[in-house]
Amino acid sequence: MTVIRAALLGFGTVGQGVYNIAQQRREQLKQKLGGAELLIVKILVRDLHKRNRVLPDGFADDAKLLTDNIEDVFCAGVQVVFEAMVGEEPAFTYLRRAIVEHGCSVITANKVMFARYGPVLQELAASCTPTSSSCPATRLYVGFEATVAAGVPIIKTLQNMCHVQRVRKIEGIVNGTSNYILTEMREHPEKTFEEVLRKAQELGYAEADPTNDVSGQDAFMKLLVMVAIAFGHQPDRSTIPVTGIDTLTLEMLQDARAKGLRYRHVVSAAMETEAESSRPLTTPVVEGEGAGLCTRPLPERLTCSVTPRLLGPEHPLYYMDGTTSAVSVETDYLGVVTISGPGAGMYCTASALMEDYAVWMEAFRRP
Amino acid sequence: MTVIRAALLGFGTVGQGVYNIAQQRREQLKQKLGGAELLIVKILVRDLHKRNRVLPDGFADDAKLLTDNIEDVFCAGVQVVFEAMVGEEPAFTYLRRAIVEHGCSVITANKVMFARYGPVLQELAASCTPTSSSCPATRLYVGFEATVAAGVPIIKTLQNMCHVQRVRKIEGIVNGTSNYILTEMREHPEKTFEEVLRKAQELGYAEADPTNDVSGQDAFMKLLVMVAIAFGHQPDRSTIPVTGIDTLTLEMLQDARAKGLRYRHVVSAAMETEAESSRPLTTPVVEGEGAGLCTRPLPERLTCSVTPRLLGPEHPLYYMDGTTSAVSVETDYLGVVTISGPGAGMYCTASALMEDYAVWMEAFRRP
Repeated sequence: MTVIRAALLGFGTVGQGVYNIAQQRREQLKQKLGGAELLIVKILVRDLHKRNRVLPDGFADDAKLLTDNIEDVFCAGVQVVFEAMVGEEPAFTYLRRAIVEHGCSVITANKVMFARYGPVLQELAASCTPTSSSCPATRLYVGFEATVAAGVPIIKTLQNMCHVQRVRKIEGIVNGTSNYILTEMREHPEKTFEEVLRKAQELGYAEADPTNDVSGQDAFMKLLVMVAIAFGHQPDRSTIPVTGIDTLTLEMLQDARAKGLRYRHVVSAAMETEAESSRPLTTPVVEGEGAGLCTRPLPERLTCSVTPRLLGPEHPLYYMDGTTSAVSVETDYLGVVTISGPGAGMYCTASALMEDYAVWMEAFRRP
Repeated sequence: MTVIRAALLGFGTVGQGVYNIAQQRREQLKQKLGGAELLIVKILVRDLHKRNRVLPDGFADDAKLLTDNIEDVFCAGVQVVFEAMVGEEPAFTYLRRAIVEHGCSVITANKVMFARYGPVLQELAASCTPTSSSCPATRLYVGFEATVAAGVPIIKTLQNMCHVQRVRKIEGIVNGTSNYILTEMREHPEKTFEEVLRKAQELGYAEADPTNDVSGQDAFMKLLVMVAIAFGHQPDRSTIPVTGIDTLTLEMLQDARAKGLRYRHVVSAAMETEAESSRPLTTPVVEGEGAGLCTRPLPERLTCSVTPRLLGPEHPLYYMDGTTSAVSVETDYLGVVTISGPGAGMYCTASALMEDYAVWMEAFRRP
């Protein structure tokens, strides 16, 4: 029997979701992935002696899974590391070591870390191989579907598209809290921002400290992750304007309502060429040698922003209400493709991590 | 230099699109796929001496690519076959031979063939390996993204989800012609079905013989392909009711308009269990051993249909106008994810075939 030994870094909502799914879908995964069985052998928490720790139902640490020492994780001989921590460090250092020192694949939900270090981790993984000879995979993998829009599969869709398509524009609603607040304020014009925020907190949609969400910083990180895939490089952060929904006034919202328009908090990245700026956006751009179809592309310019925008009913994001996340991608061959779904939640996010694991095992498994 | 030798079966709109993209994106594909260069070495047409053949701009058959003899294709030592023909045969026989006799990967846009023989081709490919020692892939691949909704990536999304999620329901608009006609008739109540159909034909959205589209048969084939992925088996065709938009009367459309509802031609497949039928659909269903969370699943029942349906604004398919294709998938961990985009067109469909090629090369390339 093939066993894949895994570690979990972080055991909050998302980490516990991963743990639960690994238990619930043990047989399904094994059957779909050539008999390989996923076994979580270590779980890193910040403080082992934390009081009032909330644990999954039925979880008793009989097998001594929990540790607050990363060396215990690396000593456990793991082949894949699931990371659901917060912030750039120590998450990046742990994942870098997992790849370089231990030949592990890594799967992360940490957008702040990945927005900064994603390309570094991908390069490291491409130059290393699984060190464990019992690992049934031939290559290391860096999974990060869960960093943007939870389980809504925007990352793999973008990655697949980019083999063949040229992305011209990305627009997305990627912060469920902001979209929930904007939706509620539109539907209940009598409520204040504070009232709506409080309700969002009660429903578990907003954090106790909502600054990251309402200021646009959370959405900004997700934009950076998408831009790196779609356009192949990380833009200079300081050149991107970031405005949150906290800049909107009641008057602005009322005015939008009166005009039949809707405010959405939109992240966007658009590649423009001089020639294209006057061309309708759904025409395929063709170039290069071959069927005698075209000329070389003109110099390109990438413009990014994170800001509340007033949209009309012709826009695909106009209809995305509540905590929905949605991303529209416009490419030269395809036109506009839109993906939407629930952008947050324990199982939405955790299942994205587990799907990354399955895709890795499916694609890179030894024949 | 690694060269991947490819054949094209069928050289109509989609086949020519594949040919054009292979030329236009030669360098991009090579760079993204570890230096492997895609070379189309044979193109099968029905009749080599057909008069007035329409060919891609700049295409002169100097290299004698065109043939009407399948043996010429197999003698050319190809590693991957792109199939863009019509109907079950001879497409199936050619692809079966390509896999079994010649160790080729196959990538198809042929929904009628795939709805019948998809699982057979997948089983054959799983039990064979690339015979050409120069092939940089370790495994054979069956790509069929283009069979449903052209380049809108519903197939790979479903495949990825199904590793971890349990699909509970699929609903989709997968025939652009029908959706265009329904949209036009709603927006222009003064026009008759015949007038709208004629306009669709003029715009290239409908075939000269639109029977397959307006009767629901085209959508039915696409439903069968999706059901096989989502629920792991092919349902008995005779048990699925198929109704086209040709059953709608002007009065029915006017009545819908008056009520603020919209007719959409919807394919659907839903898995019900007794216990779930009374449960809200977004609750995660959990079962099996592990975190002490649950009980065994109850006996399940799959219900499929293809029919015009009256939808209100709360439904994700309500907003999908014109030639858009859209599919909503509801799973236990995720809730409802919806993907939409242009569901037809030369480059939309052809780029889906080419993305399959890239995914194959990326995933199964020798390390």
